[in-house]
Amino acid sequence: MQDKNILLTIAYDGTNYFGWQKQDNVKTIQGEVERALSNLFKEDINIRGASRTDTGVHALSQLALLKHKTTIPIDRLPLAINSFLNTKEIVVTNAIYVDESFHPQNSVYKKTYQYKIYNAPFLNPLVRNYTEFVHKPLDIEKMRQASSYFLGEHDFKAFCATGSMAKTTVRTIYDLTINKEDNIITIEITGNGFLYNMVRIIAGTLIDIGHNKKQPKDIEGIILSKDRQKAGKTASASGLTLYKIYYEV
Amino acid sequence: MQDKNILLTIAYDGTNYFGWQKQDNVKTIQGEVERALSNLFKEDINIRGASRTDTGVHALSQLALLKHKTTIPIDRLPLAINSFLNTKEIVVTNAIYVDESFHPQNSVYKKTYQYKIYNAPFLNPLVRNYTEFVHKPLDIEKMRQASSYFLGEHDFKAFCATGSMAKTTVRTIYDLTINKEDNIITIEITGNGFLYNMVRIIAGTLIDIGHNKKQPKDIEGIILSKDRQKAGKTASASGLTLYKIYYEV
Repeated sequence: MQDKNILLTIAYDGTNYFGWQKQDNVKTIQGEVERALSNLFKEDINIRGASRTDTGVHALSQLALLKHKTTIPIDRLPLAINSFLNTKEIVVTNAIYVDESFHPQNSVYKKTYQYKIYNAPFLNPLVRNYTEFVHKPLDIEKMRQASSYFLGEHDFKAFCATGSMAKTTVRTIYDLTINKEDNIITIEITGNGFLYNMVRIIAGTLIDIGHNKKQPKDIEGIILSKDRQKAGKTASASGLTLYKIYYEV
Repeated sequence: MQDKNILLTIAYDGTNYFGWQKQDNVKTIQGEVERALSNLFKEDINIRGASRTDTGVHALSQLALLKHKTTIPIDRLPLAINSFLNTKEIVVTNAIYVDESFHPQNSVYKKTYQYKIYNAPFLNPLVRNYTEFVHKPLDIEKMRQASSYFLGEHDFKAFCATGSMAKTTVRTIYDLTINKEDNIITIEITGNGFLYNMVRIIAGTLIDIGHNKKQPKDIEGIILSKDRQKAGKTASASGLTLYKIYYEV
């Protein structure tokens, strides 16, 4: 019997994990999911994620490819895996069959991240792990004006953590919206791919604009400079959530 | 110098606490705030809360009365207290002077609670501590129809945990709204006061209605019965947040 190609959707609270990717001696999302799968199938299981997320970063729909001969009905598989995950911090929310040609990175053509900022004089304990706390008021209109400069294909080297191994730093941003509700500002950004720390550096730069330290039109020059020093700080991991991954089957 | 009457507003994530009220040998919100105040003022401090919240219940604006001669400017006091709270789970968000006649229970004339339900096939790790997870679809329209029966002055004995010592079980509900956004159903309820577990029992009963186990018009009979057994289960503490307290000064 041949292995089936199974695509899992996984939601997680990354607060207490050293990111997605499996590492020795630390608790990671991939490590925990593989441990659950290994216990379920009683053999060593490896999965391949669509997107690495850093320490403290969350996901509502990470994707991971599982190859296995399992006879568990596909619609029962999430519950079966969840019963072996001894935590509510990681939940498999969907499982579907995909073609043998499916590749967890190459088949992905678009991703959406959300970056959330809690903007009020005092921290809100209920969202402390899922937002960046910014106590000085942010000018959301200026942030919106700035957002348009990110749209389209650009070399985003200025918005990439130094030391990144990316072959090219050119990426396309399809959409960048900024909304506010109950003191929470949500930056939602969709692109064909993101460089290392790119969303968090964009968020940090938009925070500077909201504080009038940079002007919306400065974004153009920052992009052209290809200089990481010209962009804003890397905003904290807690505010970032991998929201959706679009793929071709 | 006379004591000043200071009203503190306190937000907290109740997940890891044994409720508001100070108890020996367990971690409570009141206990932690009093410890911070005692360290700040270098003497034993007692505060009086406006509302007891149970283990696991949250608050965005609990109120507590502090009597102290402190010369710390009132607008700096929250930051001073927060610097002695060694956690982001509890945050003092405001401090104001109130009259000597202010009483943390008697001066309160209205409270608003929010009860949040995450209604989707699988749990969402990011809201697991702040919602009740209900996987079977809820008919929100039926829940809304039912909500109108709670409005006004009624004897809510059927919606009070047994063993409560309340002198009277008559309360007035001014408002009860139900909204849904991103799979989160928010029941917002405002009344002149609430019996022990009353909001959680109302939420549990509305969940039964949303599952078609009870009908909206059944609420009338349940209230009239004064029988706790006729109402629904007590929904979990995690979904409940003390949202706002209205007081006269």
